[in-house]
Amino acid sequence: MVTSTTWLTDAWYVAGWDAEIDSAPLARTICGVPVVLYRKLDRSVVALRDACPHRLLPLSMGIREGDSLRCKYHGLKLGPDGVAEEMPLKTDPVNRRICTESFVVHERHRFVWIWIGDKAKADPALIPDLWPCSDPGWVFDGGYYHVGCDYRLMIDNLMDLTHETHVHSGSIGQPEILEAPIETRVDGAEVVVERWMPGIDAPPFWRAALGQPGLVDRWQICRFALPASVMIDVGVAPVEAGATLESHDQGVRGMVIDFMTPESETSHHYFWGMARNFALDDPGFTARFKRQQGGVFAEDKVILEAQQQAILANPDLKLSAYRIDEGGTRSRQAITRAIRAGQAEPALTPAT
Amino acid sequence: MVTSTTWLTDAWYVAGWDAEIDSAPLARTICGVPVVLYRKLDRSVVALRDACPHRLLPLSMGIREGDSLRCKYHGLKLGPDGVAEEMPLKTDPVNRRICTESFVVHERHRFVWIWIGDKAKADPALIPDLWPCSDPGWVFDGGYYHVGCDYRLMIDNLMDLTHETHVHSGSIGQPEILEAPIETRVDGAEVVVERWMPGIDAPPFWRAALGQPGLVDRWQICRFALPASVMIDVGVAPVEAGATLESHDQGVRGMVIDFMTPESETSHHYFWGMARNFALDDPGFTARFKRQQGGVFAEDKVILEAQQQAILANPDLKLSAYRIDEGGTRSRQAITRAIRAGQAEPALTPAT
Amino acid sequence: MVTSTTWLTDAWYVAGWDAEIDSAPLARTICGVPVVLYRKLDRSVVALRDACPHRLLPLSMGIREGDSLRCKYHGLKLGPDGVAEEMPLKTDPVNRRICTESFVVHERHRFVWIWIGDKAKADPALIPDLWPCSDPGWVFDGGYYHVGCDYRLMIDNLMDLTHETHVHSGSIGQPEILEAPIETRVDGAEVVVERWMPGIDAPPFWRAALGQPGLVDRWQICRFALPASVMIDVGVAPVEAGATLESHDQGVRGMVIDFMTPESETSHHYFWGMARNFALDDPGFTARFKRQQGGVFAEDKVILEAQQQAILANPDLKLSAYRIDEGGTRSRQAITRAIRAGQAEPALTPAT
Repeated sequence: MVTSTTWLTDAWYVAGWDAEIDSAPLARTICGVPVVLYRKLDRSVVALRDACPHRLLPLSMGIREGDSLRCKYHGLKLGPDGVAEEMPLKTDPVNRRICTESFVVHERHRFVWIWIGDKAKADPALIPDLWPCSDPGWVFDGGYYHVGCDYRLMIDNLMDLTHETHVHSGSIGQPEILEAPIETRVDGAEVVVERWMPGIDAPPFWRAALGQPGLVDRWQICRFALPASVMIDVGVAPVEAGATLESHDQGVRGMVIDFMTPESETSHHYFWGMARNFALDDPGFTARFKRQQGGVFAEDKVILEAQQQAILANPDLKLSAYRIDEGGTRSRQAITRAIRAGQAEPALTPAT
Repeated sequence: MVTSTTWLTDAWYVAGWDAEIDSAPLARTICGVPVVLYRKLDRSVVALRDACPHRLLPLSMGIREGDSLRCKYHGLKLGPDGVAEEMPLKTDPVNRRICTESFVVHERHRFVWIWIGDKAKADPALIPDLWPCSDPGWVFDGGYYHVGCDYRLMIDNLMDLTHETHVHSGSIGQPEILEAPIETRVDGAEVVVERWMPGIDAPPFWRAALGQPGLVDRWQICRFALPASVMIDVGVAPVEAGATLESHDQGVRGMVIDFMTPESETSHHYFWGMARNFALDDPGFTARFKRQQGGVFAEDKVILEAQQQAILANPDLKLSAYRIDEGGTRSRQAITRAIRAGQAEPALTPAT
Repeated sequence: MVTSTTWLTDAWYVAGWDAEIDSAPLARTICGVPVVLYRKLDRSVVALRDACPHRLLPLSMGIREGDSLRCKYHGLKLGPDGVAEEMPLKTDPVNRRICTESFVVHERHRFVWIWIGDKAKADPALIPDLWPCSDPGWVFDGGYYHVGCDYRLMIDNLMDLTHETHVHSGSIGQPEILEAPIETRVDGAEVVVERWMPGIDAPPFWRAALGQPGLVDRWQICRFALPASVMIDVGVAPVEAGATLESHDQGVRGMVIDFMTPESETSHHYFWGMARNFALDDPGFTARFKRQQGGVFAEDKVILEAQQQAILANPDLKLSAYRIDEGGTRSRQAITRAIRAGQAEPALTPAT
């Protein structure tokens, strides 16, 4: 296991979308540890260290045999528990002390979760409660991106939507975002940043989703939870509906789901999706939205990777935090405290 | 600031050609420090650390607004002095202690000069006196190259023109260069290498420039000055004109101007040009000469970058210095002495 | 000289195939040392440190002049003994203390051998006796590959042919290899792994070579010798011929010759060939065999380079050795012992 001062290891991380992981082995480095993932015949997921215990060849290069994996180099066959089932020479007795590390996994909310740290602590109750991903009243879909920066830079990005005005000036940016007051608070184990924009013109995306003219109230509520999720409650409601920060199911509402899984100190896996409680029967909406989001995220990726390179090129400089960064700062503090405490905090339980 | 034992930081370096720097931000790493350069509306040049004081995104990715630069990430607006003028949230009061490092710049001799070190010592009188670049009796033009080697290897190259015979055997090389005696001397703060080739056939380039047949006297006088310039007085005169090393304005004369600005320990920015006191009204001459020089310099670049790689690949070996290297050796000694003394030497004042 | 705990320096390594080295200089890094190789007019081979003693430019970029090499940068001319013959300025007296390191070389068995370490110990009698490469009763040919892994991983690969079943399942693999018992033993300074497969169906390659139907006895005898050669005696004989492990010249027999020359800790030069005592007059056989072997080896290269990357990516894991790895393990032990003893072991003398 790779120790790190920038991420928590005793925690659940997203290893992949449910549909990404199938019978063919998938290689993915998580928290600095090479992992191979695949599904057994019963569709349950296996996660093993991606190195044969014999000569370390990546097991992801191996051949599936039933629920087992046979190494491509000398043919050592390992069961889904990582334990040897057949030696390279079939005539040799199997030494069942030969094994590769296996990891606890759990499927929930359309994601496969992995626990890289101490197995004894891997309680599924600690999985962030990303309820909109699996609630029947919502439709959820999204994508995966590899990003060449410290995962915490992405958390900063998501916990301060001010950047939309500048980075996404041609798409989802809106000057009102800069003018609306924000409130940052710690809500139990979560960090919450709230922005309420009352009586404004809805931007094109939300205007179309709402399907009616007139002024709206708009909200953005970002919730960070350990180890690395950000769930953003966004939407608009007609002013006459009387929505509030606390209760706003009157209009159209989306829940943007973001999960950042560290790969190395300077790269991470970014899982992104959006759940919505409108246009439920319109798969075209989902397709259009994913395509649009691809363009929007490409803008973030350029910024985030340039920022990472600038951090490396200016080792004498430090990141500063202003008022708008309070959400990111408090999220980082929560991570640092949890790393120091050596344990995960309770799971995210968003207000519904 | 990056400290280095190979370059002087309290010194003027060329940041760019005057025409390279315009209203759009230009990123260039100088003495290990990322710098962004641009011109204000009044055409004066601004040089700032290329990192937003907020989250370190390169400011060179930002947007010009009047004389200021707005960061592309969160919109922090910095004035040309590097001081904050507007916070990411326009409603926030401006904290003028927020600033990025700014550097002293000065325009002279067609170049923009930058002082990376202690501002208090940035006296424009210390700028090397590259007078032929701006003298009305001379025409001057040149180019820029990025070279993957320690800037001192380029100084060595320029202070010993022996290499022309081998590296440039197909272009400007001439066996007489090897046969002519050279004289190396220290002239105040300069290192001078002189070569006088009396009564020889002029090589094609100089034959054409002179425009008349007959034997010529040819000279090459290389002058190194701190921190990293080499000015080479070259030309030919008809033997009957009686030119001497000390006085040789009788024929055609060029001043090759070379300035090496360190980027990292193993790369530098090479600014090259040539001033001439003949064919003043022939822009075609300049164009042809720049094109030819591009080919000649490509030969040097291959050698210098291979030399740098060989130095890294043979860590147990050291550069040797023979008699021909005396110019380079003394130039390196001047750099080392100045670094130890912690200050720049007086500027170059070539004999005119 | 680069010291290493993974290779022996006082030893003969293959620098190149005889035909690879010609009058034009060839650059090759051997045991971490950049070397330039070329042939003199009398066809004898010169090996020098590939760095001019003057300014370290690779001599392999230089120009041949007779038996000497003139550096491309300043024209220092070095003789085949590495000693200066002409200074950059022809008028300067030659300083014969100026020299580049020269290495002892020896041609034998179609290869050029080099001794990087202490010259005083460079006894040609220590060159591995790869007799089939030059025996008149055998035909020998082969190729060269650059491989991005520690040379010892290739030794492991060759001393355990179990991998053929998995890595080469589409070409030379045969299940009988896994079923046949192997015997590993130390024979003087050699490590020997023997596999005897009596009364089997010959695989297609050997069936064609033998040119007759019926069951065969098949053998594979791998011999490792210091510093890094593996010679593999392979072939089949009709069962009725009564071949044995000790004596098996009744059928068709090949000697696979492998030599691994370290380049760096994570890369090596792989020289491969095969000698045969059949189809001696069929150059088409050689051509077909080399083409086929190119495909087979491409499969190994993918595995070996992935294994090297996995070793680097899993620094907390170690290679394990099972029964099939005894040949590789004992070969590595011989290397380690020889490095500790600071000297080469006696040369390989295969049973003929």
